[in-house]
Amino acid sequence: MSNLEHFIQVKAFLFDIDGVFTNNEVLITEAGELLRTTHLRDSFAVKSALRAGFPIGIITGGSSIGLTKRLNELGIDFVATGKFQKLASFYDFIARYELNPANVLYMGDDMPDIPILKKVGIACCPADAIPDIFPLVNYISPIRGGHGCVRDVIQKTLQIQGKWQVSEL
Amino acid sequence: MSNLEHFIQVKAFLFDIDGVFTNNEVLITEAGELLRTTHLRDSFAVKSALRAGFPIGIITGGSSIGLTKRLNELGIDFVATGKFQKLASFYDFIARYELNPANVLYMGDDMPDIPILKKVGIACCPADAIPDIFPLVNYISPIRGGHGCVRDVIQKTLQIQGKWQVSEL
Amino acid sequence: MSNLEHFIQVKAFLFDIDGVFTNNEVLITEAGELLRTTHLRDSFAVKSALRAGFPIGIITGGSSIGLTKRLNELGIDFVATGKFQKLASFYDFIARYELNPANVLYMGDDMPDIPILKKVGIACCPADAIPDIFPLVNYISPIRGGHGCVRDVIQKTLQIQGKWQVSEL
Amino acid sequence: MSNLEHFIQVKAFLFDIDGVFTNNEVLITEAGELLRTTHLRDSFAVKSALRAGFPIGIITGGSSIGLTKRLNELGIDFVATGKFQKLASFYDFIARYELNPANVLYMGDDMPDIPILKKVGIACCPADAIPDIFPLVNYISPIRGGHGCVRDVIQKTLQIQGKWQVSEL
Repeated sequence: MSNLEHFIQVKAFLFDIDGVFTNNEVLITEAGELLRTTHLRDSFAVKSALRAGFPIGIITGGSSIGLTKRLNELGIDFVATGKFQKLASFYDFIARYELNPANVLYMGDDMPDIPILKKVGIACCPADAIPDIFPLVNYISPIRGGHGCVRDVIQKTLQIQGKWQVSEL
Repeated sequence: MSNLEHFIQVKAFLFDIDGVFTNNEVLITEAGELLRTTHLRDSFAVKSALRAGFPIGIITGGSSIGLTKRLNELGIDFVATGKFQKLASFYDFIARYELNPANVLYMGDDMPDIPILKKVGIACCPADAIPDIFPLVNYISPIRGGHGCVRDVIQKTLQIQGKWQVSEL
Repeated sequence: MSNLEHFIQVKAFLFDIDGVFTNNEVLITEAGELLRTTHLRDSFAVKSALRAGFPIGIITGGSSIGLTKRLNELGIDFVATGKFQKLASFYDFIARYELNPANVLYMGDDMPDIPILKKVGIACCPADAIPDIFPLVNYISPIRGGHGCVRDVIQKTLQIQGKWQVSEL
Repeated sequence: MSNLEHFIQVKAFLFDIDGVFTNNEVLITEAGELLRTTHLRDSFAVKSALRAGFPIGIITGGSSIGLTKRLNELGIDFVATGKFQKLASFYDFIARYELNPANVLYMGDDMPDIPILKKVGIACCPADAIPDIFPLVNYISPIRGGHGCVRDVIQKTLQIQGKWQVSEL
């Protein structure tokens, strides 16, 4: 299969946050909060995928009250934060939505993502993932974390499946 | 017509916010607010265009209390936020200022901007717009969103029309 | 004279803020405040120049409570904010410190800086100033605004005058 | 010795903050606070090194309540802030952990770091340190400050010593 053909199988999206929805940077407030910056093209894509009926989940080692609110507002119900051991959350996700791992697209950028990347049918990473991850994935996005790599994999999936509806805009 | 000749016809400016006045990034506070970063060379140009008598409007799918305040302070009265269907706001704008679409410059960077880009006489986008937009515009700014692309189109317009008054500074 | 020889004459430093101490970007809070980001290598250089006895002044078209506090804390007494017509503040500065314009280094990046750049003996700009400014200056820093261009001109001045005291650190 | 062989000797890590854990930029709030941005891959590495039993210390000329909280939360006990004369803090660090300077890795990017860089066995700097520092170090990271240079030196050390435990993730 060519890389793009993998996107035909996708029935659900699962994402890491830091390094995927963000560029791995956090702004530290004097109260010790860690504030993250995200990219609105990713938000746009998340809404498009949800409208097209795809379950979307988030599994992250970090924990951010603000970003969790934001993801919930976008319509994502499955947000597992503070999960350093991510595999248990992965099994929760596929159980809740009755998915076959072969139909799950997961995108992650660092070592804690490796166990899930090895389980899913469509393993993806951003352009600036750690080098150890490159040999393990089906698709390396040309876009870096926090700059639209989520939009990239969602749009490619919806387009190859004929669900990227320009007209509804 | 060469690309620059289009700027002769401009009688009013209309802009998208995210990806034009910003680089599409938002900083998420713990309260779930989305804070945007803008470029002061764009603000400088907006003030110059208003002083020169050009109506300026904003139509955006997002919604930001702080940025709306800021745009009002710069002197922009027409700020339509939370508009995912942007075309209705476009018609409001040309009605309020009694404009012919052929004399409106619109700059946008993503899919929701396409309907307006097809209506106006001077369709523009920043250097990092989505590729789908490039064939639809009269002018692709060499400058990216959030880095001065608004200044670029305003300055080119005012210069070609002899209204970029260095002396008043 | 080569460009570096100009730095021999410098007896005082005068800077624009936006585009010099910053990269022209402002983060907009929901309260409508404009927050700026500065570079600590510039702060380090400001302290070194003050210790070496150089008067330092700031003239800016913008206005920022936080940044004014910060500049005062660094030891800069002359901070003129909200000055769109900068020339009057320039004359205040040279009067207060009894300076000859030929001995003042000014660094600015945009059109409102042009009148002062034409008056001073050592006119400087960051690497990413607007192109109109390049022919008017004695020195174009290789460093962009907000990335250490202030450090660059201060360090070059102090080094050529034998006042860059590494040992005191 | 090749550069990598130096990492065999490392028994403790000591870091500057600004320009190492950050890119030297600070966001200034209207209250005059200086907020810093850090990179989560550095945080990940700090936790890995602490788990592997390495003492980690921080010596910085700046002072940040939020970042100090953050570093303490990561498990770093030795955080000396507001230290313009850094050498005294260096001696505190090696005394507290009973270290030989030959076994300490120090990473810094600017002039105040030079005295410590000259004392330690493994002197390191980020890719964008000031040029004066390059001849003084054993290892120049290919990664810039605030973009993962801390992760780079910690991961290389733990890997060459067989302590980078992927399986525990």
